[in-house]
This record gives sequence, structure tokens and C-alpha cells, in this order.
Amino acid sequence: MTGVIDPVVLAQALIAADSVTPASGVVFDVLEAALIESGFAVDRFTVGEAPDGPVENLLATRGDEPRHLAFAGHVDVVPPGEGWTASPWSAEVRDGLLYGRGAVDMKGAVAAFVAAASRSDAGTLSLIVTGDEEGPATYGTVALMERMAARGIVPDLCLVGEPTSTTQLGDMVKIGRRGSVNIWIDVPGRQGHVAYPHLADNPIPRLVAILAEIERVVLDEGTDWFQPSNIEVTDIAVGNPAHNVIPAKASARLSIRFNDRHRGADLIDRIRVIAQAHAPAAVVTGRVSGEAFLTEPGAFSTLLSESIHGATGLRPELSTTGGTSDARFLSKLCPVVEFGLINATMHKVDEAVAVDDVRRLTDIYADVIARALR
Amino acid sequence: MTGVIDPVVLAQALIAADSVTPASGVVFDVLEAALIESGFAVDRFTVGEAPDGPVENLLATRGDEPRHLAFAGHVDVVPPGEGWTASPWSAEVRDGLLYGRGAVDMKGAVAAFVAAASRSDAGTLSLIVTGDEEGPATYGTVALMERMAARGIVPDLCLVGEPTSTTQLGDMVKIGRRGSVNIWIDVPGRQGHVAYPHLADNPIPRLVAILAEIERVVLDEGTDWFQPSNIEVTDIAVGNPAHNVIPAKASARLSIRFNDRHRGADLIDRIRVIAQAHAPAAVVTGRVSGEAFLTEPGAFSTLLSESIHGATGLRPELSTTGGTSDARFLSKLCPVVEFGLINATMHKVDEAVAVDDVRRLTDIYADVIARALR
Ligand SMILES: [Zn+2]
Ligand SMILES: [Zn+2]
Repeated sequence: MTGVIDPVVLAQALIAADSVTPASGVVFDVLEAALIESGFAVDRFTVGEAPDGPVENLLATRGDEPRHLAFAGHVDVVPPGEGWTASPWSAEVRDGLLYGRGAVDMKGAVAAFVAAASRSDAGTLSLIVTGDEEGPATYGTVALMERMAARGIVPDLCLVGEPTSTTQLGDMVKIGRRGSVNIWIDVPGRQGHVAYPHLADNPIPRLVAILAEIERVVLDEGTDWFQPSNIEVTDIAVGNPAHNVIPAKASARLSIRFNDRHRGADLIDRIRVIAQAHAPAAVVTGRVSGEAFLTEPGAFSTLLSESIHGATGLRPELSTTGGTSDARFLSKLCPVVEFGLINATMHKVDEAVAVDDVRRLTDIYADVIARALR
Repeated sequence: MTGVIDPVVLAQALIAADSVTPASGVVFDVLEAALIESGFAVDRFTVGEAPDGPVENLLATRGDEPRHLAFAGHVDVVPPGEGWTASPWSAEVRDGLLYGRGAVDMKGAVAAFVAAASRSDAGTLSLIVTGDEEGPATYGTVALMERMAARGIVPDLCLVGEPTSTTQLGDMVKIGRRGSVNIWIDVPGRQGHVAYPHLADNPIPRLVAILAEIERVVLDEGTDWFQPSNIEVTDIAVGNPAHNVIPAKASARLSIRFNDRHRGADLIDRIRVIAQAHAPAAVVTGRVSGEAFLTEPGAFSTLLSESIHGATGLRPELSTTGGTSDARFLSKLCPVVEFGLINATMHKVDEAVAVDDVRRLTDIYADVIARALR
């Protein structure tokens, strides 16, 4: 057992280190110092090349017991934007609120976890912290997981500290996330003059038929834990400035957010079948940003709920709503749940967290550590 | 009766005067001199302002008899483009072909008509010649018609000298043209993130439904003289570069070529009704380039057919195919038919007309003048 860390002081030090994504250098120095003070072995490494790299990451471990809890997070932040009351890096406390870019997303939670860890030395703990969660994330958590695999580090459970609370600290825990895939449909045609349509081949009617059929697709009705999967057509492009010309091609782009009934590659295939039924020459390509995952409610979510209830009196809702997070990667490693601060001001001007919430989150994380490693 | 004009010499002089649209100056000087030599009173005037003006036009009249035939045409030409064997303004005759930009569209026909007129002094003749038919045509034939109205000039019949022949001089006469309207459909929505579609309002599904319904519209099955009216969707634009964003608006553009069963304004209204059934906030605007017109086959087309048959042995097909021409305006004045040279090389590199065709067209026009003013 070494020194006990104050989570608010550490959060202030992390915020003061400007770390617009991708983060590197000082913010990691601050974190490393606190971790070493808490008895962790710290492994910092930089990986990747342009355009998505290089990225700095930090993997910290402590203990050698069989029970192993990991905490995952990031120290990069989105750009502050204009209009802040004080500097986004000033980390000022005013009226009980700690202000600064990253206060809730998620330096406050990182500080809370390190502080919680400093209160005990039970079991085995890992910290998985990337400098690129808000950016392309190509060389962030994925690279950390490769590092862990290479070093034989396999946690039993992983707690991601993203800001999941909505109006009160503790009102929501995420036990899964929807998957996300972008799909491009390109329909070729033959250019011509509108006065002679029989000499041309307008790709637009076929694209319209494809999109009309896609609009009728019901992927599912939702599950116990997920809302229904959803297809949005996000763009259509023809790019024909000439009023009297039948265009040579027409394209559309879809974004599908899907639950654990689907896999991204299957959805791309399904859209391709629809497209080629109307336009045999249609080209359909896709990019899966993340598969859906679900940590079925069970021992881990119950443990976390008990810790939250003890500190706040609330029973958190177990949710799978919202965008993607790095939990989509970590879910391949072990059961993952996400819990953190109130997300109301994340990515906004004057991002701020209640000092009391940072302290209560520290208590919750400390209780999770105690219960998980008991 | 004054001097008899040689149509080939006049055509060469007109071609030599570079007159890429809008035409002005020298090409009109050449035409005016020939007309004065043929006994016409010539009224040249320039009208309009940027961006569609100024435009030079010429109105020539001869005679004071009750029977009144008008000839309409243009002396502007489309840009020559690259790759000509000789200068597009050289007006060379090689192997019986007169080469040059405008040889068939339509300085050859203008020369033929002036030469035909120079052979007689029967009845009343008008020449309606614009310097802007290939351009926006805002201040061309329309301005000439206003000039005619102001001067009380009302022809009984109008012959437009556009190149209507396809493979042999005399194989096709146009007795009408389809109308043309462009229509824009703008569907507003509310931007949002694809992860939270209930907070956004994607305009694309409604635009797709509108376009799918428009694809099912059958305007008509064609008429005795017209092919079926046709709707082409020529562009769709959303302009959303962000994969995770539901766009705030979606737009489409239509081009409708329609026969004399329809009027442009009614078609715009009809599209608006369809659009607003799916998207009450949709904004539909339209621009009618020209209404359909038909000069029912009768005395005038029979007269022209007889003249063509006498000179060529052919019975011309009476057609309404192809794009628009200034005949769409002149049809409001009196019965209009169109007949001219072979259009195979119009708007192309090495545009050329057979010298024999220019002479035979002159014979045909002279016969039309004789029959019409008899
Ligand atoms: Zn975050
Ligand atoms: Zn023309």
C-alpha cells in the first residue's frame, strides 16, 4: 500500500494537460506518476503511422492474484471549441463544479479509478488507457489489446469509465452497444440526352427502387436489451449539373446501427442482394465500424449495481443505447460494462463535473474493486 | 425584282463570319446586304441585358399583299470545338461538301431562303432571324415576336429552317415539338446523429417515396403525332459528407418532355401534389422551357410535302421528335412547320452540307413561296 490519491486533484492535473486527440506526453506523464505512486507497473508505448497514428497508449498493471479486474478509458479529448467562460485547460472549481475539456469525458473517471485503486492493493488490476478514442481509434484500444495478448494479460472483467450517467450519477450503466456499418451503393447507367431516353440508361429509377425496398426492410423488432436495428440513408449523390442530361451513375450511402441479432458483414451482403435485384451491375461496399456486443445482465452488472446503489441509492438502468465506444473492442476480451459520470456536458462548451460526483464515483469504483477482487 | 442571289455563295459568306452564340455584327451585315439586294426592308435591333443579353436580331419584310409567309431562323452557331480538318470559318468546298460551323445549323438554310426569295416578288415575305437560338434565347425569337406585334406584322404561315432531314434531304418535316419543363423538389428534414434517429427527421425516405411514386406515373400513351410524354429524374442531391449524420435536406431534379396533352404549369402542379402527399413541407419549383405545340397536318404540311416531293421525289415523314426549337415560340403566332438540311453533322466537328442540297433546298423553298403566296 502506498499513497492515497485525491481524485479531484488528479482530475485537475489531467485536465490542465491539454490533450486534444490524439493525446501524448504530459497528460500521460501525470497519469503515470499517479499510477506509480499507487504501486502500478506502467507500460507506455507509441504505435502506428500517419494518417491514423502515431498514438500513445498506457497499460498499467498491479498484483498477481487470480482475480483480475481491468479499467479502460482514454485521456484524449475532443477540441474545446470557442466560447468557454474560462480556459478549457484551467480546471477551475466554481460553485462545486470542476470545469474543463475532458472533465466528464473522461479524465474525471480516470482520476476516480486511479484514486479508487490507491485505496487498496487487493487482487490484480489493469488500466487500459489510450490517447486515441475520440479520433480514428486505429492504434488505440486495439493496439492495447494486442499488447495485452503479447504479455499474456487477460482480465476477468472490464469496466469502461465512459460517461454513461444521464441526469444523476448512477442512473445508467451500459451493458452493450449497437454495432455500426456504413454501406455504399453505386448504380451505373449510361449517359444520354433527356430528349432521347431510349438511347440512355438512367440509373436513378433503379437506385430509387433499391432505396424504396430498403425503406421497407425491418431488420428486427428489438430484443430484451436492444432497441430495433435501424437503417438510415445518409446521402444520395448523382452530381449531374446538366438539366438535359440523363446521368451515368447514381450513388447512395447508408448507416446501419444494429443489435446483437446481426453482424456487419451479413448486413452488407443483404443490402447487396437487394441492390443487385434491381440493378445487377450495382456495386455495394461496406465498412464495419464495430459489431454489436452485449454483456448479458448477470454477476458483473449486479455487482456494479450494488456498488452504485450503496453510494447513491439509485438502481441503474441497464442500457445499450447511444453511439459506439471502445467497449466494442474490449468485449472480445472479457465481460464489459460501462459506467461513469453524467454525460450532459460532454463534447460541449464549459464541460463540467460536480466535484461531489468525482468523489462518489471514486467510492463506487473502490467498492467495485473490493467486490470484484474479493 | 432585283438581283438573284446564289445560295452557296451567300452560305459561304455567312459561314465565314464567325458567329458563336450570341451572334452580332458582321454575320448580320452579310445577311442584311443580301436582303436589301433582294428588295427587303431590314430592321436590325439589339435588345436585353446581361446575363442573357444583349442580343442582335433582324426582321426583314417585303411586299404588301394579304398572303404572308414568314421564314424563321438563326445565324448564331455553337462553338466549333477542337479537331477540325480546316478552319470552321473557312467555308471550303471539298468533294461537293461545304464545310463550316453553321453549314447545316443553319446558315445553309438561311442562305437558301434568301436566295429563294430573290427569285420572286410575290405576296408578302418576312424573315425572322435571331442571333441567339443556341444560347439562352431569352432575347431572341421572343423579342422578334414582340417587335412584330408592335409593328403589326402577322404572318399566315411560318416555315422554320432548322435541319430536320435525317439521311436524305426531304425525308423529315417537323410539325410539332414536345414541351420541356425542369422541376426541382426540395424536401426539408431535421439534421441529427444516426445513433439517435428519433431526434432527427431524415428527408431521404420521403424523397425516395416521392420519386418511387413519380416513377409509376404514366402521363399518357402517346398520341397520333407524339410519342408518350416522359419523366426523367436527372439529379438527386443531399450533400452530406458525414457518415454518422442524418441530413437536413434532400433534393431532386426532373426533366419532363411532354406532348400536347399537357401544359408545363399543370405538370409542375401535379409533381407538387405527389411531393406534398409524402412530404407536406416539400418545396416544388419548375421552369417551363417550352410548351408542346402541334401544327395539325393539313394545308401547310401538304403544301410543303408537295414542294419536297417535286424536288426530291421523297414524301417526308411528319414528325414531332427531338428537342425544342424556336418553333415553340412562333407556334403562338400562326401555323408553323420546320424543314431544312440533313442534321447528321450539326454541332459536330467538320459540320458540312452537300452543295447540291443547298441548291435543292433553295428550289424547295422557292416552290413553297410560290405555292403559299399564289
Ligand atoms: Zn469518451
Ligand atoms: Zn439550329
